[in-house]
Amino acid sequence: MAAASKPIRIGIVGHGNLGRGVEAAMAHNPDLRVSGIYTRRDPAQVTPLAAGTPVHRMADLAGHAGQLDVLILCGGSKDDLPLQSPELAARFCIVDSFDTHARIPEHFAAVDAAARAGRTTALISAGWDPGLFSINRVYAEALLPDGETYTFWGKGVSQGHSDALRRVPGVAGAVQYTVPVEAAMQQVRSGTRPSLSTRQKHTRECYVVLKDGADPDAVRQAIVSMPHYFDEYDTTVHFVSAELLAREHGRIPHGGFVIRSGNTTPAHKHVIEYRLQLDSNPEFTSSVLVAYARAVHRLHQQGRFGALTVFDVAPGLLSPKSAEELRRGDL
Amino acid sequence: MAAASKPIRIGIVGHGNLGRGVEAAMAHNPDLRVSGIYTRRDPAQVTPLAAGTPVHRMADLAGHAGQLDVLILCGGSKDDLPLQSPELAARFCIVDSFDTHARIPEHFAAVDAAARAGRTTALISAGWDPGLFSINRVYAEALLPDGETYTFWGKGVSQGHSDALRRVPGVAGAVQYTVPVEAAMQQVRSGTRPSLSTRQKHTRECYVVLKDGADPDAVRQAIVSMPHYFDEYDTTVHFVSAELLAREHGRIPHGGFVIRSGNTTPAHKHVIEYRLQLDSNPEFTSSVLVAYARAVHRLHQQGRFGALTVFDVAPGLLSPKSAEELRRGDL
Repeated sequence: MAAASKPIRIGIVGHGNLGRGVEAAMAHNPDLRVSGIYTRRDPAQVTPLAAGTPVHRMADLAGHAGQLDVLILCGGSKDDLPLQSPELAARFCIVDSFDTHARIPEHFAAVDAAARAGRTTALISAGWDPGLFSINRVYAEALLPDGETYTFWGKGVSQGHSDALRRVPGVAGAVQYTVPVEAAMQQVRSGTRPSLSTRQKHTRECYVVLKDGADPDAVRQAIVSMPHYFDEYDTTVHFVSAELLAREHGRIPHGGFVIRSGNTTPAHKHVIEYRLQLDSNPEFTSSVLVAYARAVHRLHQQGRFGALTVFDVAPGLLSPKSAEELRRGDL
Repeated sequence: MAAASKPIRIGIVGHGNLGRGVEAAMAHNPDLRVSGIYTRRDPAQVTPLAAGTPVHRMADLAGHAGQLDVLILCGGSKDDLPLQSPELAARFCIVDSFDTHARIPEHFAAVDAAARAGRTTALISAGWDPGLFSINRVYAEALLPDGETYTFWGKGVSQGHSDALRRVPGVAGAVQYTVPVEAAMQQVRSGTRPSLSTRQKHTRECYVVLKDGADPDAVRQAIVSMPHYFDEYDTTVHFVSAELLAREHGRIPHGGFVIRSGNTTPAHKHVIEYRLQLDSNPEFTSSVLVAYARAVHRLHQQGRFGALTVFDVAPGLLSPKSAEELRRGDL
């Protein structure tokens, strides 16, 4: 292990699912250490996984600049990160999981300006999509320029679609699974580069608890016709009890596939496939953030200031091993 | 496209399967151009894919230093690259596909010394294994430190094993396929982290043409008991005619799987799988070398001198797109 005797000091900003996942990941990364958890709540109300981990108010961060090597920002992309990431990148190295695809260029620019001014290193949009899936799209496109890339998601829980279900009148609780269509994936793997509509790639499965007196047919119709969320998909609605929903649909699994097929010559086609199958979407995402925190610390030590994405980070920087160990053992 | 008006000038060193694959890949990479093919044969005997591509003697390389940005070395790992790579890295940026795993540290050291002295950039051991599979092992291990990685190869032609068959007395021709065992892969994907013996992971299928008068039973016995190559595997030997071998087994498909399963917490396991399914092993390998030639040129322009491996190269450097285009379109 290249892990020095001096561990990388991590600050966890926010203690929801992601923040707890980052804490959990620390057990498997002995070259990193949680120096503190920073919360907008009353610190007394936050229980860290490891007894003894200090919990601070967000405002305390300002005074802790010398005690933290990298902050892992565990807030949401809608309300938290657009403000937090640039603000904190001005004085800290950071990793965030900003995942609003359309707003990434704008977020990058804001974080980059702050990080360059502050001579910090700031990695945005880490996770699995954006993140690992993005990396695999870029590798596959570079290796097979004459080809087509397909991304399938699931089977997994879509938080956005589950939230949309819960806003339907008459719905007391709900979970939505995005399911890739196996036949479409097989077509893609065959190398024929099919044109696939939204409907052909994924189906949506909804587990819904009705409020007392709600009309199932009206609820079902409201769901399957909902624009953007469900109308372009084959959607199945299952009405279940609150007990069953809690018992069987309380996990947050996810995953998916990035598949590219292409030709090097007309006679020779190739298929590159990357697949994730995750029992817990937030825990795995946290694990990605932690590995990138290690890389960010190393890049900062090399003087690489400014904002970065996963495209800018060499694979070896994520590993606790040295370049020499990797060459000897993993090539 | 960030592809400048001035293409990256590539020299192809060696014109066997790999060298021809590099030429073919150029059609899909308009920001690169073949400046010349360098051969130990009589240049008049070498026919480039694109009429007009100059073919030179190897000795001419010495005088062409100012005309070439990156050399792609297409020789073999046993006899060619151990000498060629350090020698040429002293004056050229190079990419090679050195794949003798055990000798990589030694090869790296020799190339690194030459490249540092010559202020060149030299990427060794590019391809898919070592190469893309190595990258996926390192990413997966960094993301799931508590886990187990499995590599399966095939279904594909093993050149080394096919050569071994051809050395058996009584064999006139042969092709050997390495076949991953589906049941073992399913066990791995289940996340149970099984212990798998060599025999449990792969089988070997041999298509053999007998010499006139050869004894099939003796040949079969010699094959299945051959130490290192076949004795630890379940091996099937099919005797076929020379015509059938040529007609049905003349391609060089390959591929395989890198699968890691691991836990973030005891309750939550995850599976990361990377798969290649290649119609032509050499053509795909060539395509990898070409993408890395682009990266090497960029790293050289950044002043990153010395030897590198795929672990040291950020994914974005392989793409013809700029970092900004990648952030906008591929994250």
